[in-house]
Amino acid sequence: MTATILDGRALAQELRTATQSEIAHLSAQLGRTPGLAVVQVLGDAASTRYVRSIEKLCATVGAGFRLIALPPETTQAELEASIAALNADSEVDGILLQLPLPAHLNANAAIMEIDHRKDVDGVHPINAGLLAQGRTALVANTPAGGMELLRHYQIELRGKRAAVVGRSAIVGRPMAQLLIQADATVTVCHSRTPDLGAVLRECEIVCVAAGRPGLVTAEMIRPGAVVVDFGTNVGADGSLVGDVDFAASAEVAGAITPVPGGTGPMTNVMLMRNLVAAARNLHQL
Amino acid sequence: MTATILDGRALAQELRTATQSEIAHLSAQLGRTPGLAVVQVLGDAASTRYVRSIEKLCATVGAGFRLIALPPETTQAELEASIAALNADSEVDGILLQLPLPAHLNANAAIMEIDHRKDVDGVHPINAGLLAQGRTALVANTPAGGMELLRHYQIELRGKRAAVVGRSAIVGRPMAQLLIQADATVTVCHSRTPDLGAVLRECEIVCVAAGRPGLVTAEMIRPGAVVVDFGTNVGADGSLVGDVDFAASAEVAGAITPVPGGTGPMTNVMLMRNLVAAARNLHQL
Repeated sequence: MTATILDGRALAQELRTATQSEIAHLSAQLGRTPGLAVVQVLGDAASTRYVRSIEKLCATVGAGFRLIALPPETTQAELEASIAALNADSEVDGILLQLPLPAHLNANAAIMEIDHRKDVDGVHPINAGLLAQGRTALVANTPAGGMELLRHYQIELRGKRAAVVGRSAIVGRPMAQLLIQADATVTVCHSRTPDLGAVLRECEIVCVAAGRPGLVTAEMIRPGAVVVDFGTNVGADGSLVGDVDFAASAEVAGAITPVPGGTGPMTNVMLMRNLVAAARNLHQL
Repeated sequence: MTATILDGRALAQELRTATQSEIAHLSAQLGRTPGLAVVQVLGDAASTRYVRSIEKLCATVGAGFRLIALPPETTQAELEASIAALNADSEVDGILLQLPLPAHLNANAAIMEIDHRKDVDGVHPINAGLLAQGRTALVANTPAGGMELLRHYQIELRGKRAAVVGRSAIVGRPMAQLLIQADATVTVCHSRTPDLGAVLRECEIVCVAAGRPGLVTAEMIRPGAVVVDFGTNVGADGSLVGDVDFAASAEVAGAITPVPGGTGPMTNVMLMRNLVAAARNLHQL
C-alpha cells in the first residue's frame, strides 16, 4: 500500500480533546455548559444506540445533554410543540431531531420548525441555503468531517479538480458546496452519470457518498488522487464497508480514508463543534 | 453559422401569453389578481428603470403591482417593517426587494425577513436551501429562465456532462443545482479553475455566468455543445455583450443563446411565473 491513510479515528480523538477545552472555556463565559437537546420519537433500536453514543460524547467533552423521548404515537403537533419549547429554552444551544421518524410524521415539516441557529445537524433549509449561497452556516456533520480531514492532512483544494459521487441533501450536495467554497473545481456525479470512471480519473480529489459498496474501483482513481469515502454499508458478514474498493484503491491513491476509521468517527465530533459554534453565535461570544 | 439560436425573446413572448392566461384563471379562483409588491429604497436610477419594466410586465400579464418606494435614508428597522407588513398582507403574493440597497442597509438581513413563500425572486436562504436539498422551491429567475430555454428546445440533460462557469449565489450556484436535478453530471468552474477550456471541452452543456466579457472562446466549446450565456456586460460602445465570444462560438456549438435576446428576456417572465406559483401555493390552488 502506498497511500497515506487519512486517520479519522486519531483526528476525531484530537478534536474531542480540543473541543473539551473549548467547551470548558465557553462554559466559564456562559455560566453554564452549552446544551444539546435530542428529540427522539421512540421505536427505532438503531436510533436509541446512536442517541446513547451522543449522550456519552457530550459527557466526554463536557456538554450538557437532554433527551426528549416521545412515544411512538406522538402527533406532528406534539412533535413540533416540543421543538418550539426547545427553541425558546435559553439553556438549549443545539437541537437534534433524531431520524428516521415513524411514517405518520413529517420530518421535513418538523425540521423547518427548528430555530436554524440551533440546528447543529445542519439540516434546516436555511443552513443548506446559507451554505449554497457561500455564507456562514451550520454545516451537516458528515461532509464537515470530511473537509476537516482534508484540512488536517493539508490537502490542497484550491484550483484542484474534485468529484463528489452522490447527491444526497445530507452528504453529497453539501460536500460539493464546501469544496466549491474551498476553490476546487467540483463535479457532482450520481446514478445517472454514464461513465463514472472517466469523470473520476480527471480528479485529484474524489469524495464518495453513494451508499453502494465497491462502486468506486481502483481503475477509476487517478494515481496520487485523494479519496474520501463516506460510504457506511453493512457487508454480508456484518462488517462495515465503504463505497470504495479500499485495498486496491490504496495502491493507486495518494491518500485515502479507511472504512471504518475514516469519515465515520469524524461525524459526531463535528456535531460537538457545531454545538460550540451555535452557542457562541446565539450568545455573541 | 451552424448553431441553433436559442431565442429567448420569442420564448419569453410565448410564456408571457401563457402566463397571462394562467393569471386570468387564477384571478377568477382568487377573486382578485395575484399581486406583486416591490420594495425599493430610492436613489438608484437603474433600479428605477428596472422597477418600471416590472410594473409594465405586471400590467401586460394582468398581475397586480404595488411599489413601496422608501426614501434613501430609510433605516433597517423601517425597511424590515415594510417587509413584515407585506408578509402579513393577504393581497400580496410576491415580494421583491430591489437591490442594490444603500450602503447603510443590510440586504441579507432584510431578505431573511421576507416570508419565503412570497420570495418570488428566489433569494431567501430557505429557497436556496430547498433547491440545494433537491426539493420544491421558488427558484432565482435568471437560472430558471435558462432551464426553461433548455426545456423548450428539448435539450437532453439526463446523463450529459454540463459545466457552469461562475459560482454566484443568484445564477451560477442555483443553475448547477437545477442541472443536477435534471440528472446532468455537473462541474462548477470559477475564477480559480486553472484550465477552463479543458473542463468545458468535456461538456455537452456549457452555462456561463461569470460577468467577464469574452471569457469563453470558441476553442473551449466542444463541437455540437449547447451554450447558455448569462453574461450581461456593457461593452465599450455601450452595447450589451455576453461572457461568450458569440460569433466564433456559434460556428462550433450545436445551439447557443445570443446576448442580447437569449437568457435576458427570460428573467422577468420567470418572475411572473414565480408569482403565479407563490399565489397557488399560498392559497392551495
